[in-house]
Amino acid sequence: MMIIMKSNATPQQTEAVIASVKEAGLNVHLSQGVEATIIGAIGETHSIPLERFEGMDGVDVVQRITKPYKLASRQFHPEDSLVPLDGFHVGGEDIAVIAGPCSVEGRSQILETAQAVKEAGASALRGGVFKPRTSPYSFQGLGEEGLELLAEAREKTGLPIVAEIMSQVQVDVMVKYVDVLQVGARNMQNFNLLRAIGETRTAVLLKRGLSASVEELLMSAEYILAGGNNRVMLCERGIRTFETSTRNTTDINAIPVLKSLTHLPVILDPSHSTGYSEFVAAIARAGVAAGADGLIVEVHPDPAKAVSDGRQSLKPEAFAAMVKQVGQIAQVMGRKLATVQGEYSKNGWA
Amino acid sequence: MMIIMKSNATPQQTEAVIASVKEAGLNVHLSQGVEATIIGAIGETHSIPLERFEGMDGVDVVQRITKPYKLASRQFHPEDSLVPLDGFHVGGEDIAVIAGPCSVEGRSQILETAQAVKEAGASALRGGVFKPRTSPYSFQGLGEEGLELLAEAREKTGLPIVAEIMSQVQVDVMVKYVDVLQVGARNMQNFNLLRAIGETRTAVLLKRGLSASVEELLMSAEYILAGGNNRVMLCERGIRTFETSTRNTTDINAIPVLKSLTHLPVILDPSHSTGYSEFVAAIARAGVAAGADGLIVEVHPDPAKAVSDGRQSLKPEAFAAMVKQVGQIAQVMGRKLATVQGEYSKNGWA
Amino acid sequence: MMIIMKSNATPQQTEAVIASVKEAGLNVHLSQGVEATIIGAIGETHSIPLERFEGMDGVDVVQRITKPYKLASRQFHPEDSLVPLDGFHVGGEDIAVIAGPCSVEGRSQILETAQAVKEAGASALRGGVFKPRTSPYSFQGLGEEGLELLAEAREKTGLPIVAEIMSQVQVDVMVKYVDVLQVGARNMQNFNLLRAIGETRTAVLLKRGLSASVEELLMSAEYILAGGNNRVMLCERGIRTFETSTRNTTDINAIPVLKSLTHLPVILDPSHSTGYSEFVAAIARAGVAAGADGLIVEVHPDPAKAVSDGRQSLKPEAFAAMVKQVGQIAQVMGRKLATVQGEYSKNGWA
Amino acid sequence: MMIIMKSNATPQQTEAVIASVKEAGLNVHLSQGVEATIIGAIGETHSIPLERFEGMDGVDVVQRITKPYKLASRQFHPEDSLVPLDGFHVGGEDIAVIAGPCSVEGRSQILETAQAVKEAGASALRGGVFKPRTSPYSFQGLGEEGLELLAEAREKTGLPIVAEIMSQVQVDVMVKYVDVLQVGARNMQNFNLLRAIGETRTAVLLKRGLSASVEELLMSAEYILAGGNNRVMLCERGIRTFETSTRNTTDINAIPVLKSLTHLPVILDPSHSTGYSEFVAAIARAGVAAGADGLIVEVHPDPAKAVSDGRQSLKPEAFAAMVKQVGQIAQVMGRKLATVQGEYSKNGWA
Repeated sequence: MMIIMKSNATPQQTEAVIASVKEAGLNVHLSQGVEATIIGAIGETHSIPLERFEGMDGVDVVQRITKPYKLASRQFHPEDSLVPLDGFHVGGEDIAVIAGPCSVEGRSQILETAQAVKEAGASALRGGVFKPRTSPYSFQGLGEEGLELLAEAREKTGLPIVAEIMSQVQVDVMVKYVDVLQVGARNMQNFNLLRAIGETRTAVLLKRGLSASVEELLMSAEYILAGGNNRVMLCERGIRTFETSTRNTTDINAIPVLKSLTHLPVILDPSHSTGYSEFVAAIARAGVAAGADGLIVEVHPDPAKAVSDGRQSLKPEAFAAMVKQVGQIAQVMGRKLATVQGEYSKNGWA
Repeated sequence: MMIIMKSNATPQQTEAVIASVKEAGLNVHLSQGVEATIIGAIGETHSIPLERFEGMDGVDVVQRITKPYKLASRQFHPEDSLVPLDGFHVGGEDIAVIAGPCSVEGRSQILETAQAVKEAGASALRGGVFKPRTSPYSFQGLGEEGLELLAEAREKTGLPIVAEIMSQVQVDVMVKYVDVLQVGARNMQNFNLLRAIGETRTAVLLKRGLSASVEELLMSAEYILAGGNNRVMLCERGIRTFETSTRNTTDINAIPVLKSLTHLPVILDPSHSTGYSEFVAAIARAGVAAGADGLIVEVHPDPAKAVSDGRQSLKPEAFAAMVKQVGQIAQVMGRKLATVQGEYSKNGWA
Repeated sequence: MMIIMKSNATPQQTEAVIASVKEAGLNVHLSQGVEATIIGAIGETHSIPLERFEGMDGVDVVQRITKPYKLASRQFHPEDSLVPLDGFHVGGEDIAVIAGPCSVEGRSQILETAQAVKEAGASALRGGVFKPRTSPYSFQGLGEEGLELLAEAREKTGLPIVAEIMSQVQVDVMVKYVDVLQVGARNMQNFNLLRAIGETRTAVLLKRGLSASVEELLMSAEYILAGGNNRVMLCERGIRTFETSTRNTTDINAIPVLKSLTHLPVILDPSHSTGYSEFVAAIARAGVAAGADGLIVEVHPDPAKAVSDGRQSLKPEAFAAMVKQVGQIAQVMGRKLATVQGEYSKNGWA
Repeated sequence: MMIIMKSNATPQQTEAVIASVKEAGLNVHLSQGVEATIIGAIGETHSIPLERFEGMDGVDVVQRITKPYKLASRQFHPEDSLVPLDGFHVGGEDIAVIAGPCSVEGRSQILETAQAVKEAGASALRGGVFKPRTSPYSFQGLGEEGLELLAEAREKTGLPIVAEIMSQVQVDVMVKYVDVLQVGARNMQNFNLLRAIGETRTAVLLKRGLSASVEELLMSAEYILAGGNNRVMLCERGIRTFETSTRNTTDINAIPVLKSLTHLPVILDPSHSTGYSEFVAAIARAGVAAGADGLIVEVHPDPAKAVSDGRQSLKPEAFAAMVKQVGQIAQVMGRKLATVQGEYSKNGWA
């Protein structure tokens, strides 16, 4: 960490900053240039907030040299982390394809969808049961009933299940049913929830907030990792920008950037990142070509009847076509689509 | 709500949409133009999500005519809502000035600050006890001990207290101590929390999310209002944009826009919306000139020693100067600064 | 075009809007609903600005049904447009790869680069001679001397040349030398320049502005097309967002969106859209997987010595590896890399 | 300038960077810390682009200590610059109010408006004659005929005139007629135009680009100042963000930020920065309260008939009310509204 003093900083101000650096348990390396005095703060700086020094008199800029996260950093963990699911691992050679409806709406809907996406080549099933809805008047999800339906779908298809958790009070019931806890974009900085999930050992799909920076996403992952849960997958799902021709802007850059900064797997959600079913396949292909370790895609047997997100949901046929294309791109990348074992029981994969 | 069909939509697709509109309990007004067929959906549309129709085949665009919120809307509640605090109301003639440190750090710090801001003209005291921190390694707040210190500061100064709530599990303890529950930017769409707060009758300061639209802010207010708690104040605290010369971009436009759309009071937080203490007074003045009903400002007796947000905290003297300027602007606006009665007890204001 | 009146609009206001619609040469289709009166304006609406009606008393919202561009629209020109270069066409089966240095710096630099990118598989050579530099103190380009060097490089390699034009006063000299006039992001709405280029018949690479919407990009293309020059290629080069881990945010969504809205070819510039050489290949692959018709990439024999954009320039070896990968992705997409004939003379391709 | 080497940079790479710094005419101050080696580059660094070093092997980050502009910087010119107009100066005690229609549409329209804004208290007249229009089908302005009408309005009212210049080829005709050359947002980085204007001695109103940073705005001012023309006024006119409830987002923070960084006057354009006439007065008041040196406001005698920007234009009565409020805010700020002498002739103010 470097603390650059203002050109008109007094010696007393510089002394005060030096004292504060030492108080933080860091060593000081002083460099008095012509343009400015620079105080290098050396040691375990990742846990020291910049603001500790930014508010001091005479300080111009505080610049980090090392990143503010450690457990999530590739620097401290150079090999790719693998997150085990049913007979395959996310983050390795296999490309995971998670698919299913935005919301679990009923028994036949979820069983039918599960069967269809399994046949098309999906390796996991998604479905929302607690729904974060912008309007208090919208459908809020089936709750635990939905989880039971997901579990039934898993038994029938062998697909591991992914569902969104919205609050720390849901941890127990969610962990009982699901294979992957999804943290939605709106909860990426719900730190109480992150800490509670860090205490579990269930895999997590952590979605990037609507306007979260790549660094903030990694800091949120750090919360979970700090609790001892290292089964964390990151998910790019589009960011909010000025462009309105799509629902969000897919930050495709974030894929190679994240792969360079962290060892955690990176998943792309082309359904939310575009918002229109007709653009999903193109962006799914792009994601895998850019180096993503998997995809999460909304599929509904009858999008026009979906209670939520119908506009961005693929019909099963369109999803099957997408999976085929993605498989070919995976091959060019020296990878292949993951395949489930299909012999799952809640006591573990057979 | 108007549903504009694609120019090449088939009669069957149009029929299906019409059927779906009727199924939603709405009446249909069909208009077959040369460019496009338009289906008007008439009735209680605010509770119908656009996506209900957006996913249907042949639909081009769905456009709302009435807003998706109702309780928060000025159309249904033309008079300004007043939120009562100690002897004054927010949203009326009085301009509330809420001030205090980012975090409650200890007894002398909070008592000293409370006294200083009271003398300078503040009408409420803020202080964080559960802190949303980007890093798991940062100071996370004093918890209930901090609430007790705030209560003591209130007894000594008569200032009502404002503190941030981070999770629905904190509702009971927070309601026991504070006068205003602050919902932070990162929790603006924590719908479980909003619903829990809607069940209380404690006043709320709802901060706008980092990249939340004005409409989304009002939808989040609608969640609280729908629970029966109508003591909601909205807070503009800066949005995230490409500009990095300040921490956030103050969306000053949001002040007159909100005042036109809703009857709820609007507060500005110039500390977070700028991030630098040297710009706080200018933006505080601007906020009141633009029509804000109050300000919330970070003040710390020794910003250089603040455990958080030191860079944007005013020293008491600078705060006092700011209050004076803001008072003069308030006068031009035909308003005046709120003054507390100073005889508060937890059983109610004397 | 639909003009939605406010719920409290008077009959006189509605009458005035109707009169104004008729005055604009449009027909009126009136629809008096319960929620609002809607005035449909039917006819050649693409040339009528929304603001013509937005300022009128009683008007709530004006909504377009047809797009504000026509010549650029796929609706009026369903087949893909092909832009001919040396023995191949951009916009068809062939994927164009345009490569070269940010700036032409000298004879050996440009000749060496041209040779290297040709060998690696490039189908056109780029090089800046008039440079738009943020600072008045930076290198501003070699001007006409640079154009002569580019022409020499073309003679030696057969690669058509692409160079940026910054002002309408440069049209004559640029047209004399180059095969493709590049319009930079900062000039996307330099309407005088667009009009001047519309008068030529030289191919154009029109880059999207830093914060231009997809629709505004198409409106700028419309300027050139309206002048009679239909050899227009569009270029996504990254947009400005809050994310700072890359120089810009590649709007990968824009590729399928543009392909659906327009018949013009779409090129991706992964060098500017990422800003870091280590991310260029990943995003180049993603672009072709998303449906781009070509790439424009910065290559420099010694990026560390480049006078501009060294940080994002590929070395020739890295570029050659990228071309190989892109070729494989192209194959999956049912396409192939363009190859130049190599027998160019300024009188036309042999 | 500090060049931070990667932790795994080789001594050879460090040597190469040091050599490059010396080659650029700068002195080197080397600091070998535990985390990283830092190379301080000392001297006239404002004219050295960061990219000169960013592309070199082993370099992690390059950080400026001094700003990349000099003539525009308050550091090198601590006193406020005053730009003289008719009997008053912009940038001093007086608050300039520039008002008039978006476009000059005809003789009676501009003369009537000029008279009305003069009576209401305006100190200059604006009116567009060359119009930057997104659509090639929109009204493009009256050209020189419009300039003659503006000159006539000036003779009748004594108001100095402000009009937009769109291209370097218009410099001669514009300088002949206008008192202030307005550079529009879309041309803020039209460097050829900036350089041409730098050669004149006519006052300039330089508008911030739609997504230009504060620093880029100052760099564009530097272009004009570097040519010897120091009569530069900066104009905040709203930036593009995700928020769509207003046309743009007024970056009110930019006002105190610019006043701290530069000695040049800062003007606010609340018409473009909001886009809706009903919000203009609130934001105009906010601008002056935040420290702006003036306002530029669109006024039209009949906004519903305006050929452009009718939605954001004030009627003369509303403008007069706004001026009154702004005058009161100015007084609180220790300033007053500028008043024209009213005895102008093209040979200079009487």
